[in-house]
Amino acid sequence: MQSLSKDKLIIQSLDVFDIRFPTSKEFIGSDAMHTNPDYSCAYVVLKTNCQGLEGHGLTFTLGKGTEVIVSSIEAQRELVIGKSLGEIFKDFPKFLRLLTSEPQLRWIGPEKGVVHLGTAAIVNAIWDLAAKFEEKPLWKMLVDMKPEEIVELLDFRYVTDALTKQEALEILKGLEGTKKIREEEMVRDGYPAYTTSAGWLGYSDEKVRSLCKEAISQGYNHIKIKVGQDLKEDIRRLELVRSEIGPERKLMVDANQKWEVQESIDYMKQLSKFNIWWIEEPTSPDDILGHATIATALKPLNIGVATGEQCQNRIIFKQLLQAKSISFCQPDSCRLGGVNEVLLVFLMSKKFQVPVCMHAGGVGLCEYVNHLCMFDYICVSGSLENRVTEFVDHLHEHFVNPVIMKGSRYTTPKAPGYSAELKKQSTQQFQFINSTPSK
Amino acid sequence: MQSLSKDKLIIQSLDVFDIRFPTSKEFIGSDAMHTNPDYSCAYVVLKTNCQGLEGHGLTFTLGKGTEVIVSSIEAQRELVIGKSLGEIFKDFPKFLRLLTSEPQLRWIGPEKGVVHLGTAAIVNAIWDLAAKFEEKPLWKMLVDMKPEEIVELLDFRYVTDALTKQEALEILKGLEGTKKIREEEMVRDGYPAYTTSAGWLGYSDEKVRSLCKEAISQGYNHIKIKVGQDLKEDIRRLELVRSEIGPERKLMVDANQKWEVQESIDYMKQLSKFNIWWIEEPTSPDDILGHATIATALKPLNIGVATGEQCQNRIIFKQLLQAKSISFCQPDSCRLGGVNEVLLVFLMSKKFQVPVCMHAGGVGLCEYVNHLCMFDYICVSGSLENRVTEFVDHLHEHFVNPVIMKGSRYTTPKAPGYSAELKKQSTQQFQFINSTPSK
Repeated sequence: MQSLSKDKLIIQSLDVFDIRFPTSKEFIGSDAMHTNPDYSCAYVVLKTNCQGLEGHGLTFTLGKGTEVIVSSIEAQRELVIGKSLGEIFKDFPKFLRLLTSEPQLRWIGPEKGVVHLGTAAIVNAIWDLAAKFEEKPLWKMLVDMKPEEIVELLDFRYVTDALTKQEALEILKGLEGTKKIREEEMVRDGYPAYTTSAGWLGYSDEKVRSLCKEAISQGYNHIKIKVGQDLKEDIRRLELVRSEIGPERKLMVDANQKWEVQESIDYMKQLSKFNIWWIEEPTSPDDILGHATIATALKPLNIGVATGEQCQNRIIFKQLLQAKSISFCQPDSCRLGGVNEVLLVFLMSKKFQVPVCMHAGGVGLCEYVNHLCMFDYICVSGSLENRVTEFVDHLHEHFVNPVIMKGSRYTTPKAPGYSAELKKQSTQQFQFINSTPSK
Repeated sequence: MQSLSKDKLIIQSLDVFDIRFPTSKEFIGSDAMHTNPDYSCAYVVLKTNCQGLEGHGLTFTLGKGTEVIVSSIEAQRELVIGKSLGEIFKDFPKFLRLLTSEPQLRWIGPEKGVVHLGTAAIVNAIWDLAAKFEEKPLWKMLVDMKPEEIVELLDFRYVTDALTKQEALEILKGLEGTKKIREEEMVRDGYPAYTTSAGWLGYSDEKVRSLCKEAISQGYNHIKIKVGQDLKEDIRRLELVRSEIGPERKLMVDANQKWEVQESIDYMKQLSKFNIWWIEEPTSPDDILGHATIATALKPLNIGVATGEQCQNRIIFKQLLQAKSISFCQPDSCRLGGVNEVLLVFLMSKKFQVPVCMHAGGVGLCEYVNHLCMFDYICVSGSLENRVTEFVDHLHEHFVNPVIMKGSRYTTPKAPGYSAELKKQSTQQFQFINSTPSK
């Protein structure tokens, strides 16, 4: 495909699809705040002047509202059409600002919520295109880049008080000499994962028990359970899960923003006897200072605070790190504005010595984070200590290059691109048109 | 109209319009980040089973992207249709959560950006309907409510660590006995305003000079100037403005998020000789800790920090107050999720002793804040010290009940409702359909 140069490879069209899977029928993904999700996505397809070379990118949603993101992506379309891949990569921060700071659109963000979720789908599609152009899986394309190239991809706006470009460069250079060893390790062993599959609120005791057993047999050492609807019920379920997984395995709980600040502290004190590794999303994802208060109060109980899947952008992560609000950093590959912003959060986390444990699940998130956690380990963190990436075993069958697990580990993707290409049949079958499924 | 009871008054339809005024042609509203705004709004009309009794509400935008908010409002429509006014007011926090925490839509917010701007238009329309039902202007309807009624309207979720319902009640009760005096004062004298009309970046020196003269002749004692594109040019313009307005009048500058944290401090040190009352939006509206750093550094120079027009919700304001990030609190009546959330920010600001100086301008914002600042003074702050509400003299001619200024003061609105009803002719002429103006 490299017969055409990067500068001559032009994005000629941007199509966006509203894809919805009816997962709510089986309570998949049910938690204290999101009781009936239909895992969905806004799915972007970029076509180019090179026949057969396309970029596919998505942003994950819970059903209703996908059409709002589609509308936002359509508003950004004219900013993308006609650009060459070379032009974008020559000054990627400039292109990112074109998307995030378009003078009229900026007002309805900026860099948060709907518009930023839309930005992610576009930027992720461009990375998919670039990796396909290079004929490498995304993680490998990133790993093969020089530190000097990586830092030029990042928009440091609003985070220079926490991390400068020079500091980012030094972090990457520090790992450069040894990255080959870690790359071989990842190809051989894969990246450790934890599972949320067992712990959704809507499941029966029997189902939870059997899913715990299954997870253990697959080699999982970390299990996460949803909590927050009812304290007595949570205690009962945690007893059940602890009895299944034993005292040694790590047990995490996830409140999905159910609580006030003080309530989080009081509630978690009641659960501390279960030896909880982290409490995830105790309260609002916007509450940096609240999480810091909770983290301080729970430190003596050895319970870490984790959040990130609904944290809107690098500026929130910067502050969570500055304020010591979190012991585990959980960025979402689609809520942040695509690959570039995720890399910036990796680098800030490294500087502040907080392990990254990426959020995944939904539709396509596991496919995405598979690439990203490989890069984090090989080029940024250089450590697996206290690091596990979320894995949920749903909906992978719809992808052309689905994630492949080896026991409880993510394996390195082999196919060129960023793995978010949906099968044609799935796109057709689950496309949502005019408020009714199209089929 | 009260022949029908509140419980029998049913919202039967919700129409939403994309209204755009071509203000960019004259550089109106141009600043360092928003260089070509077309002042616009997503405009909601609620029809009821009582002929002639409608609710009108809007959220302000800058042109492109209004259609995205329209799409979001349409996704919320089914949550509103069929509700009675009585049902909503019986448990307003429950209704607010229905809008903001709809389990699928919540993911694409929560409570921020597009979905929250949409929520504001709906909630504001409901308040307009309620005030028309009571046959009072909104400010008067609020002022006539008992403290016990007011606090029941507010959703304290995620802010109880800063302000409890009990504390809010005590604040309101503390002012209850004297509110009649302040109400009479407002009816007689109005609420003090400041003007931004003179200071847009696109204006010529002559225009700035003549607008300064005009503002002084109207009685303004506070003038705000946009800065941030070029230091030398800013210094030149500030010299010009100071020479026009004299040394005593308050001079504020607005950077519209142009700078990094350290850059804000360095830049403002260069401007401090102009005796700047506040620097508005030095950096990202998401950066609570950054604003706190800037505030600390600028305190010795007697420059206050102000922000709020792009602060997404009460949780950000809570933290700005907790962290002492701001000396002036500038909530936006449409970016927050409507009247209720604004009242909560008023109450938190009172507790933390930070004056509220509401953001206005755009389309309809002056009409809205006129009601809100009256309530703040009469029932919450009880003080005019260091308090001025923004005023920009644009686009008022499109409203059925436009804001009326007396010199440099907002006068108390007289007409029932919340003043955001657009003239039929304006709605028709400036409706934007299928990417082209409809006319």
